[in-house]
Amino acid sequence: MESNDYNDPAIMGGCSVPVRVNRKSKPDATIVNVGGIQFGSSEIVIIAGPCAVENHEQLIETARIVKKAGAVILRGGAFKPRSSPYNFQGLGEEGVKMLREAGRETGLPIVTEVMDTRMVKFVAEYADMLQIGSRNMQNYPLLKEVGMLRKPVLLKRGMMATIEEYLLAAEYILNQGNEQVVLCERGIRTFETTTRNTLDLSAVPMLKHLTHLPVIVDPSHGTGHRWMVPPMAKAAVAAGADGLIMEVHYKPEEALCDGYQSLSPDEFTRLMADLKKVGHAVGREIYQHE
Amino acid sequence: MESNDYNDPAIMGGCSVPVRVNRKSKPDATIVNVGGIQFGSSEIVIIAGPCAVENHEQLIETARIVKKAGAVILRGGAFKPRSSPYNFQGLGEEGVKMLREAGRETGLPIVTEVMDTRMVKFVAEYADMLQIGSRNMQNYPLLKEVGMLRKPVLLKRGMMATIEEYLLAAEYILNQGNEQVVLCERGIRTFETTTRNTLDLSAVPMLKHLTHLPVIVDPSHGTGHRWMVPPMAKAAVAAGADGLIMEVHYKPEEALCDGYQSLSPDEFTRLMADLKKVGHAVGREIYQHE
Amino acid sequence: MESNDYNDPAIMGGCSVPVRVNRKSKPDATIVNVGGIQFGSSEIVIIAGPCAVENHEQLIETARIVKKAGAVILRGGAFKPRSSPYNFQGLGEEGVKMLREAGRETGLPIVTEVMDTRMVKFVAEYADMLQIGSRNMQNYPLLKEVGMLRKPVLLKRGMMATIEEYLLAAEYILNQGNEQVVLCERGIRTFETTTRNTLDLSAVPMLKHLTHLPVIVDPSHGTGHRWMVPPMAKAAVAAGADGLIMEVHYKPEEALCDGYQSLSPDEFTRLMADLKKVGHAVGREIYQHE
Amino acid sequence: MESNDYNDPAIMGGCSVPVRVNRKSKPDATIVNVGGIQFGSSEIVIIAGPCAVENHEQLIETARIVKKAGAVILRGGAFKPRSSPYNFQGLGEEGVKMLREAGRETGLPIVTEVMDTRMVKFVAEYADMLQIGSRNMQNYPLLKEVGMLRKPVLLKRGMMATIEEYLLAAEYILNQGNEQVVLCERGIRTFETTTRNTLDLSAVPMLKHLTHLPVIVDPSHGTGHRWMVPPMAKAAVAAGADGLIMEVHYKPEEALCDGYQSLSPDEFTRLMADLKKVGHAVGREIYQHE
Repeated sequence: MESNDYNDPAIMGGCSVPVRVNRKSKPDATIVNVGGIQFGSSEIVIIAGPCAVENHEQLIETARIVKKAGAVILRGGAFKPRSSPYNFQGLGEEGVKMLREAGRETGLPIVTEVMDTRMVKFVAEYADMLQIGSRNMQNYPLLKEVGMLRKPVLLKRGMMATIEEYLLAAEYILNQGNEQVVLCERGIRTFETTTRNTLDLSAVPMLKHLTHLPVIVDPSHGTGHRWMVPPMAKAAVAAGADGLIMEVHYKPEEALCDGYQSLSPDEFTRLMADLKKVGHAVGREIYQHE
Repeated sequence: MESNDYNDPAIMGGCSVPVRVNRKSKPDATIVNVGGIQFGSSEIVIIAGPCAVENHEQLIETARIVKKAGAVILRGGAFKPRSSPYNFQGLGEEGVKMLREAGRETGLPIVTEVMDTRMVKFVAEYADMLQIGSRNMQNYPLLKEVGMLRKPVLLKRGMMATIEEYLLAAEYILNQGNEQVVLCERGIRTFETTTRNTLDLSAVPMLKHLTHLPVIVDPSHGTGHRWMVPPMAKAAVAAGADGLIMEVHYKPEEALCDGYQSLSPDEFTRLMADLKKVGHAVGREIYQHE
Repeated sequence: MESNDYNDPAIMGGCSVPVRVNRKSKPDATIVNVGGIQFGSSEIVIIAGPCAVENHEQLIETARIVKKAGAVILRGGAFKPRSSPYNFQGLGEEGVKMLREAGRETGLPIVTEVMDTRMVKFVAEYADMLQIGSRNMQNYPLLKEVGMLRKPVLLKRGMMATIEEYLLAAEYILNQGNEQVVLCERGIRTFETTTRNTLDLSAVPMLKHLTHLPVIVDPSHGTGHRWMVPPMAKAAVAAGADGLIMEVHYKPEEALCDGYQSLSPDEFTRLMADLKKVGHAVGREIYQHE
Repeated sequence: MESNDYNDPAIMGGCSVPVRVNRKSKPDATIVNVGGIQFGSSEIVIIAGPCAVENHEQLIETARIVKKAGAVILRGGAFKPRSSPYNFQGLGEEGVKMLREAGRETGLPIVTEVMDTRMVKFVAEYADMLQIGSRNMQNYPLLKEVGMLRKPVLLKRGMMATIEEYLLAAEYILNQGNEQVVLCERGIRTFETTTRNTLDLSAVPMLKHLTHLPVIVDPSHGTGHRWMVPPMAKAAVAAGADGLIMEVHYKPEEALCDGYQSLSPDEFTRLMADLKKVGHAVGREIYQHE
């Protein structure tokens, strides 16, 4: 018979869980506070916004729409990790500043990606939460750098990272003294080609079991198809996710980046209503502005 | 911008959908009728039972429990595809007969696996639905053989089959004249080792888009951990699955096969109550005995 | 420090090796004899021929060419496992008979695939060696059936099979009393898309370590590109393979199946000369007709 | 029939090759010069040394051994990307200095990894070649930074990177003006667990076809087992690799890192003799000190 010790590597395919992120060493859920919004409680936190910050109008319009529909944190990329050097690389520092401006105008805390150790200080000055993207999940100097901050970190799972490697990456941050880490399943790489990645929703209950850190899901990158975001977002909530991060664009057909996976305002608004129902069904509420 | 034609291989990672299973050639959902139970309607069908038929008591006790909790079809393996020749290989023909007996006593239609073309006729005589397991998804002589029946087929996705290959396997069956095919996502093989397989729930909306056939999910094999079955079962329903197939054992700790992923009677009963709520949240009912 | 016990699952990623195929239980290499040609000695056996048997001319012309260039066994598919039901499915029994005829005319033993338990007896009557294809590596009734023969079996690795599962599949055959099994690495499925599969040449030294059975390589299916066959065939020999199986067509541009990965007569002849040199470099000879 | 245009994405699984690395835009092989040693000619370059720089004795002893056996470049890690924060992280700047010292004493050019944009200038001052490790293959700020140097770069393939993504990563470097890039296959992540990674030797002919950059192989990380390094090193040369990078330790049983995959001095010496023979068999020489 199976032991009940889910930290036993023999049961868990060899996975051993490092000490600081391990739920055994801290049974209570960690609450991560992002500008007053709490991850890890019974309430589900919705982060939304465009893939990339493009210009003030795009950003502020999208921010207003997602806020009105119920998102409580604004996302937007300023430093964009793009596979090709010839793709739009983001607005950089200017983009970060525009994001803060939009955050202030709408009253939404903001999260944005940082890719370079040299930019950590700058981004930390402007953003409420720093994102470490999938491609940098094992960028250890960067993990150490954000570990020295006292700002929350959104650490996305690498697209080919095992659960063990993912927890070890989080451990790098906690080991520097920063416990404010939110994990995010965003799709792993498999042989399947109809979807951009394979969204591994089983990572949600698995991570919740192994660690005390909050776990959210990114169904936009996880699927790569706008029409798949609603069913997978609902599934993520049903599986026990503490939040969702989704791409929304006020005019998806004009997006400079990832338009095919960005929800339109109407789609996002409808989805928020549906998520409320699924949340109720599993005994949870969607986080709301007071 | 993305085209809305999800049968366009350029959009779908090269996947092209064969003609008979293609939703474009038959926009209405196919209803698969198994002993009066219908897959593919708005109602969600729950199949449950032990991994393997072990003996009369085990089977009939488990059958009564799953029926009482709300399952409408009984599963049980008699011909077991086991990785090792030294593992329990199932009771064979005797097991199939015991399964029918239990089905009759409880009034539940039964589904069981067939692995060998030579056994198709025999199994079809006793079972209400024939299962083609993951390892046989590309066993073309077997697909052709069940395609010549007029009995419903539960075709499980191969653990390393692309969506395209899966649809082509179903096409083999339809091409012989048998349209009564239910698809089943049951986990794919990836690099991750904490779970037995990676349950690819995104396959549910993807398959529902591409084909008119019903799509169900097997969270037991998909995760390999009993405690992960409830969250993933709920997620499957939220993602739009038309049904679930789950392993339940009246005494999981004594199971000859897969005890670590089989639900106990209490766990299954609680899960059924939860599934009802999640079903409602997405506008669906759990199929009930009239 | 690493233990030297490569059967220790702790070292080998959890892999445990079943008893009959295990080199520990039989340190000497098994010699598999196919119509007088021996696999598993210091000599490297070359199998060549068309993907599919198409007609007498194609087959006999190709057979003469590959024999002249140095191949010692003729391959050709009569029962073809094709992903789509609408692709050429092979000539079936007639193809098997044509293959034997070509084998007799040229004096080459023949190997061909069997997919259905019902056809094992027929194929065994005509062929010198029976091939179990990748898709059937875990077709246990088929493995048991060829295990009851006293004819050599070419068991190809499943495209999703771990080394452990592969050895367990071979164990099914040995467990029925048939020790005449040759293993064949033919590419596994990964995320990479430029090649048809990812030819896992590290499986060669790994299998040679763990089992006493001969191990050959199929660089045609493993790569899916004709121009990649020569470098990968040479690499396979350098890695220690006991043989190669390659697709050659007398007119690749007219092939009904897999023409893009079939060598032309000239390419094959040149490759054979190169293989001789690489064989020498690692202390081995290419098997020659006496 | 297959087109001969291997830059045609339709043939190559969707892979498109960016302009600067593309062999079509520069048919002649790029020669990369590392302290007088040339990659990309007909001669095969052997890089060897310890996983990590541990202390002066270990380094200088190992350097002498590998030089004597025929290696022409010395490798050694000072900044070590380790999955766990609790593993030895390398000696850092001190390690880089010790490596240069050992390089000068033995007359061998040195290559070492850089992980942090802030350290690029420092490492470039001391090393003859900068290595970008697998985990940083898509660390775009780092790629841009080494692209601005006029020092050769050893860019290892990410363990999850497609051939297309790998070429795009190299393009980032070339696009900044640095054409001195050597590619290195070092194993990809698959479902297989007996080896540390799956060494994808088919990447060698594929990359040589698509790009003018030199391609080498790392059989130490690619397999994770010392005893597999010799057969896979020979296979890499047979497949057309322009060089090899291997871990050698003067006392593998005492290594602080990766001892189980490091060759002993005797093993390395024997392997060098064998590589010479395989090189000859494919018409190439092993690069030698004049």
